[in-house]
Amino acid sequence: MSITKQSVVNSILTESTQLGTAAEAFAPSNIALCKYWGKREAELNLPINGSLSISLGELGSRTSIVESDSGSDQVYLNDKLIEPTDRFATKVISFLNLFRRELQQPVVIKTVNNIPTAAGLASSASGFAALMLAINDFYRFGLGNEVLSAFARMGSGSASRSVFQGFVEWQKGLREDGMDSCAQRLDLEWQGFRIGLLKVATGAKKVDSRAGMQRTVESAPLYQAWPEQAAKDLQTIKRAIEDKDIELLGQTAEQNALSMHATMIGSWPPLLYWQPESVAAMHRVWELRALGVPVYLTMDAGPNLKLLFTAEYEAQVRDAFPELTDLDLVAPFG
Amino acid sequence: MSITKQSVVNSILTESTQLGTAAEAFAPSNIALCKYWGKREAELNLPINGSLSISLGELGSRTSIVESDSGSDQVYLNDKLIEPTDRFATKVISFLNLFRRELQQPVVIKTVNNIPTAAGLASSASGFAALMLAINDFYRFGLGNEVLSAFARMGSGSASRSVFQGFVEWQKGLREDGMDSCAQRLDLEWQGFRIGLLKVATGAKKVDSRAGMQRTVESAPLYQAWPEQAAKDLQTIKRAIEDKDIELLGQTAEQNALSMHATMIGSWPPLLYWQPESVAAMHRVWELRALGVPVYLTMDAGPNLKLLFTAEYEAQVRDAFPELTDLDLVAPFG
Repeated sequence: MSITKQSVVNSILTESTQLGTAAEAFAPSNIALCKYWGKREAELNLPINGSLSISLGELGSRTSIVESDSGSDQVYLNDKLIEPTDRFATKVISFLNLFRRELQQPVVIKTVNNIPTAAGLASSASGFAALMLAINDFYRFGLGNEVLSAFARMGSGSASRSVFQGFVEWQKGLREDGMDSCAQRLDLEWQGFRIGLLKVATGAKKVDSRAGMQRTVESAPLYQAWPEQAAKDLQTIKRAIEDKDIELLGQTAEQNALSMHATMIGSWPPLLYWQPESVAAMHRVWELRALGVPVYLTMDAGPNLKLLFTAEYEAQVRDAFPELTDLDLVAPFG
Repeated sequence: MSITKQSVVNSILTESTQLGTAAEAFAPSNIALCKYWGKREAELNLPINGSLSISLGELGSRTSIVESDSGSDQVYLNDKLIEPTDRFATKVISFLNLFRRELQQPVVIKTVNNIPTAAGLASSASGFAALMLAINDFYRFGLGNEVLSAFARMGSGSASRSVFQGFVEWQKGLREDGMDSCAQRLDLEWQGFRIGLLKVATGAKKVDSRAGMQRTVESAPLYQAWPEQAAKDLQTIKRAIEDKDIELLGQTAEQNALSMHATMIGSWPPLLYWQPESVAAMHRVWELRALGVPVYLTMDAGPNLKLLFTAEYEAQVRDAFPELTDLDLVAPFG
């Protein structure tokens, strides 16, 4: 019998689910410095490689769950009631259903993302993490963080990392049920570390990450070299964080991100998330670096850039990228 | 003792070089459908992988060599006398020196490229091929085509392919002296095959191919998957040409080219020959293909695109890319 999300949940939650009344939780967005790209198992979102991220502090998703008076489930996103047949609503309710099991108690789930959509950041990571934390509270499961991370991962892979603040490592794990494929906060702080959210293009992704990584794994010959590179990059990035070495961190994170994009570019059909504006911005980053400013880029499955640098170079980065507003500059450690 | 270009030439040309009077030769540009990327040996330009190209008929380089009256060598490019210390002149004379050996006879070498520089095509392949053919004639060596190809390769790797018209395969070879690393014309014609030279951006390359491939081999983890991919792609492309299967040819050539660029993108520092205009043009090609037009792209170490298609779709391609002039459309088989 193959393992399903439900069978994994049932193996951990052996008691009946209790009726809930109200709960609310927040989870931050995160940006991977060593990327997650490729699943070894699609049902549970088990990754081929481990990954490492930085959480974005107060930028993320806040989710509340309360009893419903209306007799049916209701899902809100950013204060708007979502049609039950909408993809967002069905994903949220399917995930909730894993945990309510025999209970028919209808609920109202409200999610508010405080990252402006304009920043071009995916909200599924913080969204599923906040939902999982709210579910844990609503049904009074009292689960530990690592179990919450593993469960959130079943909603969206990178949600496993959004359960934590700071630098977070998601270990790929080896178990078939995935319960060792969960994230942990690294005991490392870096006050001066800065992230710039550089939005260069809009438009919904044409190929979502799930489909994108599947295509890459199946069709890109270059992908075969990715898992080993990612494993090495992850260790290098941990060392760079320990040493607060922005050059080593930036170089490794940038090469890691570009290598991930390279595997997509080598897929068939080619998967290029970059727009002309992305390439223009990449060249601008490299020109700034050529002037001696240690600024590095990372990119996810979309056209936008995230800049990595330290507080001492914030003025130069803002000068070179005047489109960065205060809201786009993140100091993950306050 | 390590092998040098001179020792290779001397091992083949065992008799003294004769005084020459005048010679002239033409060699076509070529576009690789399966790319050459990475050297196993840098002195002789021995490649890590085999490659396959299409020559561009009458587009290429014409080179003449005549005795000099002035007492010293003179090099002309496109009817302009070039300073002897200029990089172009020193490369031409260094190459000639391999063959004139004990002879002090000064010469005038004139090269004319009839590919408008605007097309964004490198001229080193056709240039060294034409120079080698002219040298063979000038000194009356009477060398066969495969030896000429191997010698041209020592000037510029892809020059080995420009010795021939039509579809050309450059076998990587195994010998230490590289004399089996030469090209051959494939006995295959394809009347309806078309190439569109789509220039999207100007500006000299910042990193030449030689330095680019060295950086990739040394720093891109993804490169380790390239040689096997290239070997497979080469066989697939040969089969596609035999079957006149534009979908299979186009898909394989496009994925091959993008995978080559992917290995560059995964290098450190990142090597991105694309400009914003390149990415815009790539998306246009994919949009046209989504409309049902079998048009494919290939790209070399620069920002421009080459389109691959068949005569029956020429009207659609011209409609979609009005910047293509008659000069930019090549019918390699007349």
